Amino acid sequence: MISFKNDYSEGALPEIMEALVQSNLESTVGYGMDEYCAKAAEKIKKRINRPDAQVHFLVGGTQTNQTCISAFLRSYEAVIGVKTAHINVHETGAIEATGHKVVAVEGVDGKITPQDILAAVAYHEDEHMVKPKMVYISDSTEIGTIYYKKELEEISACCKELGLYLYLDGARLGSALTAEGNDLTIEDIANLTDAFYIGGTKNGALFGEAVVLLNPELQKEFRYSIKQHGGMLAKGRLLGIQFNTLFTDDLFFKAAAHANQMAMKLKKGLADCGVTFLADSVTNQQFAIFTEEQTNVLNREFLFERFGTTEDGKNVIRFCTSWATKEENVEQLISTVKAM
Amino acid sequence: MISFKNDYSEGALPEIMEALVQSNLESTVGYGMDEYCAKAAEKIKKRINRPDAQVHFLVGGTQTNQTCISAFLRSYEAVIGVKTAHINVHETGAIEATGHKVVAVEGVDGKITPQDILAAVAYHEDEHMVKPKMVYISDSTEIGTIYYKKELEEISACCKELGLYLYLDGARLGSALTAEGNDLTIEDIANLTDAFYIGGTKNGALFGEAVVLLNPELQKEFRYSIKQHGGMLAKGRLLGIQFNTLFTDDLFFKAAAHANQMAMKLKKGLADCGVTFLADSVTNQQFAIFTEEQTNVLNREFLFERFGTTEDGKNVIRFCTSWATKEENVEQLISTVKAM
Amino acid sequence: MISFKNDYSEGALPEIMEALVQSNLESTVGYGMDEYCAKAAEKIKKRINRPDAQVHFLVGGTQTNQTCISAFLRSYEAVIGVKTAHINVHETGAIEATGHKVVAVEGVDGKITPQDILAAVAYHEDEHMVKPKMVYISDSTEIGTIYYKKELEEISACCKELGLYLYLDGARLGSALTAEGNDLTIEDIANLTDAFYIGGTKNGALFGEAVVLLNPELQKEFRYSIKQHGGMLAKGRLLGIQFNTLFTDDLFFKAAAHANQMAMKLKKGLADCGVTFLADSVTNQQFAIFTEEQTNVLNREFLFERFGTTEDGKNVIRFCTSWATKEENVEQLISTVKAM
Amino acid sequence: MISFKNDYSEGALPEIMEALVQSNLESTVGYGMDEYCAKAAEKIKKRINRPDAQVHFLVGGTQTNQTCISAFLRSYEAVIGVKTAHINVHETGAIEATGHKVVAVEGVDGKITPQDILAAVAYHEDEHMVKPKMVYISDSTEIGTIYYKKELEEISACCKELGLYLYLDGARLGSALTAEGNDLTIEDIANLTDAFYIGGTKNGALFGEAVVLLNPELQKEFRYSIKQHGGMLAKGRLLGIQFNTLFTDDLFFKAAAHANQMAMKLKKGLADCGVTFLADSVTNQQFAIFTEEQTNVLNREFLFERFGTTEDGKNVIRFCTSWATKEENVEQLISTVKAM
Repeated sequence: MISFKNDYSEGALPEIMEALVQSNLESTVGYGMDEYCAKAAEKIKKRINRPDAQVHFLVGGTQTNQTCISAFLRSYEAVIGVKTAHINVHETGAIEATGHKVVAVEGVDGKITPQDILAAVAYHEDEHMVKPKMVYISDSTEIGTIYYKKELEEISACCKELGLYLYLDGARLGSALTAEGNDLTIEDIANLTDAFYIGGTKNGALFGEAVVLLNPELQKEFRYSIKQHGGMLAKGRLLGIQFNTLFTDDLFFKAAAHANQMAMKLKKGLADCGVTFLADSVTNQQFAIFTEEQTNVLNREFLFERFGTTEDGKNVIRFCTSWATKEENVEQLISTVKAM
Repeated sequence: MISFKNDYSEGALPEIMEALVQSNLESTVGYGMDEYCAKAAEKIKKRINRPDAQVHFLVGGTQTNQTCISAFLRSYEAVIGVKTAHINVHETGAIEATGHKVVAVEGVDGKITPQDILAAVAYHEDEHMVKPKMVYISDSTEIGTIYYKKELEEISACCKELGLYLYLDGARLGSALTAEGNDLTIEDIANLTDAFYIGGTKNGALFGEAVVLLNPELQKEFRYSIKQHGGMLAKGRLLGIQFNTLFTDDLFFKAAAHANQMAMKLKKGLADCGVTFLADSVTNQQFAIFTEEQTNVLNREFLFERFGTTEDGKNVIRFCTSWATKEENVEQLISTVKAM
Repeated sequence: MISFKNDYSEGALPEIMEALVQSNLESTVGYGMDEYCAKAAEKIKKRINRPDAQVHFLVGGTQTNQTCISAFLRSYEAVIGVKTAHINVHETGAIEATGHKVVAVEGVDGKITPQDILAAVAYHEDEHMVKPKMVYISDSTEIGTIYYKKELEEISACCKELGLYLYLDGARLGSALTAEGNDLTIEDIANLTDAFYIGGTKNGALFGEAVVLLNPELQKEFRYSIKQHGGMLAKGRLLGIQFNTLFTDDLFFKAAAHANQMAMKLKKGLADCGVTFLADSVTNQQFAIFTEEQTNVLNREFLFERFGTTEDGKNVIRFCTSWATKEENVEQLISTVKAM
Repeated sequence: MISFKNDYSEGALPEIMEALVQSNLESTVGYGMDEYCAKAAEKIKKRINRPDAQVHFLVGGTQTNQTCISAFLRSYEAVIGVKTAHINVHETGAIEATGHKVVAVEGVDGKITPQDILAAVAYHEDEHMVKPKMVYISDSTEIGTIYYKKELEEISACCKELGLYLYLDGARLGSALTAEGNDLTIEDIANLTDAFYIGGTKNGALFGEAVVLLNPELQKEFRYSIKQHGGMLAKGRLLGIQFNTLFTDDLFFKAAAHANQMAMKLKKGLADCGVTFLADSVTNQQFAIFTEEQTNVLNREFLFERFGTTEDGKNVIRFCTSWATKEENVEQLISTVKAM
C-alpha cells in the first residue's frame, strides 16, 4: 500500500537522524537548557531577523497551542478562530480544558478575515460574555490554503487596533511558505504576529515545534507554562538538535518544497483526469472529490484520509504529501485515476 | 566535566537508536495505532502476565501523571501523595491545573504508609472538603528508596478497603525493580495497583512512558484524555519502537541494573571515605552530604544537583547514575573524594 | 420610568418576603441541611411525582448550569446546545472554565432538534475531538419559544438512543409551563430529562434555583460539586423557605401565569398597532421590532433591553414581564406605541 | 436546643430585613449596577478612606475566594496560606478547581508569618515548581485569633518586597476588628493589603461579601471573573441594600461587637469552671476542650461543632456566637458546665 495518509507517516529526514545518532552519547543538561537548543534558537532568531524574539521548543502541535493560549490569556479571555480551526475541532477540547472558550467564526477558504474579527469583538459587548483577546490562525490552513501578505497585514492591523494578540499555528508553515504564489516570508510572519510556531513534526522532524514569542508581554515566565502542560522534554536537546539541523542550509524550506512539488504534480495529474477539488490548495494537502465507487478502487492500492462529504454525496479525499513522498508513488496514483 | 547530574543526560541505548534508524523510512499510521505500538503493548502485557491490561504510550512523566490523574478523577476528587511526591512539588501545579488537589501526607523515607492514607481519608469527612479518591506513589521514590512487597501489599489492601485507586509513578521503576534487596516484581505491581507507568525516559529511551491500566474502570476512553493533554504523539510509533526494544531480552531491566551497579559502587566508595547519606538509597540516585568547601572541590570536575541542605547547614548532593554511566567516571569521583 | 427591562427588577413575591420575615430569628443548621429545605424538596418531589428524585437548591442560573455540567461530565466530554444557548453566549465562559466545550448547533426557533443532536454526535467521530455526552436545552428558550411535548419526547428518545444526558435549564420554566398552547407538564419534564432546574430568580423569588436530579448516575456526591463551585449558601434555609412558599398552593405557577398574561396583552396590543416580532413568543419575553426613531420615543418612558438588529437595520426590543408587572403599565406602553 | 453551632444560624439583623421589605417592590436594574450597590460602595470607600478602591458584592465566602484568586493569578501562579486556611481545607478544592495550587505553610496560632512566606518563596526556585504570587490570610483566623497591626505591617512589607499580592479573607472581619486588644482598623487593612473582603454572611446579613480591590492591577475587568464564577446575582441590589444598611451608623461593627461580648462572657464563664481552650481566641469562636462524657452532657441542651481532638483524646468543641446570640443562652451554657 502506498500512503498519502499524512505528512507524519515516516520517521525523520536523514540529516536529522544522522545528527541524533552523532550526538547520542554526549552528556548535556536537560529540559532545553543545553547548547543545541541555544544554537537552534539563535539560528531561528537570525533567520527571522528578530534578535529580541524568544524561542522555545515543544513536542507537538496540540500541546503547543494549549500551552500558548493558556499562557497568553487571563481566565475569562477567549480566542477567535475559524470554525475549521484545529483548536476548535481536532484537539479534544484542549483549549477549553485550560478554561478558555474558542469563539468560532465563519471565515473564507479556511481563512479568517478582519470582518470576522471585528464582528466577533463587537458581539461580545460586556462582562456577561467572554472577552476575545487573541486571534488564532494557521498557515497553511486546515484545507490547504495559505495567507497572502496583504491578508496577514490586514489581520495584523485589525488585531493591533482591537488590542488582540495574533497567534499563528505553523504546523504546516514550511509548506505554506514554499507554496506556489506565496508572497509571505518567515520574517513577515515574525513582524506581523505576536507569537507563532514553526512546525517540525509535519516537515521532517521526528517531532517538535519551535514557538517564537515576539511580543514581550508574552515572553514572561513562559517556561512555567511549558512545564505545567507537560511539554518540557527531559532530553530537551533532541528538539535543539532537530531544529538546529532544520535551520542549517535551509533544510526546513527544502523539505517543504519537495512536499509541495509532489502535491502540485498530484494535483495537476488528477485535474488532467477531470478530478475536481474542494478548494484550490497550493500546499501539501490536496482535497479531491471522488464517488464512493472510485474511492473503493483507490482503496486497493492507496492509504488516504476521508475528509468529508460534498453536498451531492461524493467523498472528499485528502492526499497528503511530505518530504518523504516518492515521485513514482504520485505517478502511480495518477495512473490509477487515469484508468478509472 | 563528568556528569552525575541526572539519568537523562545522554540520548538512548544503542539498541534503541538502531531500531529507530532501521525503521526510519517505513510508512505507518499515526497516533500510536501502528504495529510497533501494538507489538510493544503485547510484550508488556505478557511480561506482566495481565492480558486484560491496556497499555498506552506517552512522551514524558509530568504529562503522564497529569493525564492519568485527570482521567481517573471526578472534578471534586483529590489524590493523596507524600509531601516530596513529584506531583506535589516538581510539576508546576500540573495536577491542580486540571482541577485536582494533591493531599500531601508526611510519609516515611519518601514512602506513604497505610496510616497516612487512613488519616487523610478520615480527615476529609464531608462535602466541604475534597474527596480523596486515589493514592499516588512512586517506585523508586524521590529520595531513592523503594517499596518492599509487604509494604505495597498493605497499601494496596488499604486502598481497596477505602475505595481508592492506587497509581504508581514508575519514572524510575527499572532502578527500583533491579535494586539490591528489592522483592517486588513487575507482575506484583500489576496485581497490586490500578494503574502504573513504566518509565522509559530515565532508563535508556530517548523519551517515553508506558501507562498500564489494570482496573477496567480506568480503561474507558483513555485516548481522549491523552489527546486532550497534548500527549498523543503524531509519530506514535517512535514510542512503540522504543518500548518494543526495551522489552526485548529484558533490555529494560539490564539497563537499570547497570545504573544500580554504578550507584552501589559510588555509594560504597564514598561511604568508605566517611561520607554520609541523606537516606539509605538502594537505587540510582544517591544523596550524599558534603560541606560547602567539599562541594566546591567536586564542582571543578563533576556536574551534579544540589538537592537541599541538612539541618546543620551542609549540602545534600545528588549523584545520579544511568545506563550510560561509565565505571571509570565513578572511580574518578571516588578518587577525588578520597583526596579531599 | 416604567421598566420592562427584565423579570428580576423587583424583590420577591409578598408571600416570600412574609415567610422570610416570619422565620428570621429561628435558628437552623446551615448549608441546606435544615427543615425548610427538606420540606421544599419534598413538595417538589411530590409535585413532579418522582419520590426518587434528588432536589438541591442553588443561588443563580449560571452557577447552577456550571455546577451541573461540571458534575455530570468527565474531563473530555462536551455539552451540545443551540447557538443562542445561555451557556454558549451569556455565561462568560463559565462552562469552559470548568474544562468543557459547548458544541453549538443551529436549532430552529431557539430550540434544538433531534437532527441537530444526531449530526453533532456523528461529526465527533473519534478521540481527536471532544465526546458529546449531554444535551442542554432551556424552556422557555432565549427567544421566548417553548418546547412542545412531542418535541421533548423526541429529543429525550434521541438522547437515550445516543447515550446522552438531557438537561433542561428552567430559568424561565414557570413561564413556559403556563404559556398559551403549552402541553408539557412539570411531571413530563421530570420523566423526559435526566436533570433540570426550576428557576426561582426570574419567577418571584429573591434568588434561587431548584436542581432536580432524576438519573441516579447524576445524584451521587452532588453536594461536593455545589460546594466546589461556591454555590453552597451558608444560610441555605433562605432557599428552602422560598421554594417551600413557591410550591405551596401552586404560587410558582400562578406568578408565572400573571407574567404571561401581561405579555400576551402587550403582544396583542402591539400587534394591533402593526408592530412585528422576531419570533412568535408565547412567554414573558416579547421581542418587538421598532425603528431607531420609534425606539427613541419609547426610551423616554420605558426601560427595556436592545436585543439586536434585524437584517434591514431595525432594532429588536425585548419587553420582559414578570409576576410584578402592572397591567396599567402594559396599557401605557400600548398607548404610547399607538400614538407613534 | 440552644445553638452555638455557627454564626449563620439565624436570618438577618432586623435593620436589614426592614430595608429589604421597604425596597421590595422598587424596580431597579440588575447585576449590581443599581443605586443601592453604588451607595453601599461609596459608604465603604469612605469608611476605609480609599476613594480609589473598587468595591464589588458577591454572595458567599468560597465564591469570593475562588473569584479573587482566579482573577488575580496567572495559570502557573500559586497562593500561600497556612495549613488551616479555609481555602486549603474547607472549600472542596475550589481554588484548585480554577487551576491554582495552595502552598500550605505551618503558621503560628493560625496566622502566617513573614518567615513562612520567605521560606515558601525560597523553596519554589524555578519553573519546575509553581510560582507563589499571593498570600492569603484571614482575620479573624480559622481558630479565632486575630492579626495585630505590627504583624500585618510586617507581612505586608514582606509581600511588597517579594512581589506578592496580599489578600485578606474577612469572613469574620467584624469580629476581628471589634475584638479585645485588636489594634487594627479597617483603614489599616485597606492600606496594607492589595485586596480584602468584608464578610456580611457571618455578621448579620442574609448573605453577602464586599470585595475591596485596592491594587489597580487587580481592579481590571473584575466583573468578568464574578460572572464566570457564577457570583453575579441577578437581583444584585439585595447585596447593595444589605451593605448599605451595615455601613450606616456602623451597624456592621456594632453587630460584631455584640457577638464578641457574648463570646467573652462565655469564655470567662467556662474558664472560671476550669475549662481549657485550644487557643486564646479573642473573637466570636471559642474552642473549648471537654471529655467525651462532658460533651455528651452538653449535647442534651446545646448544638455546637466538634472541631477536632486533642493529643490526649479529648474533644475540641467550637462555640460560636453572633449578632443574634442571647445573653441568657450563654448563661445557661455556663450553668450547665458549672454543674458538670
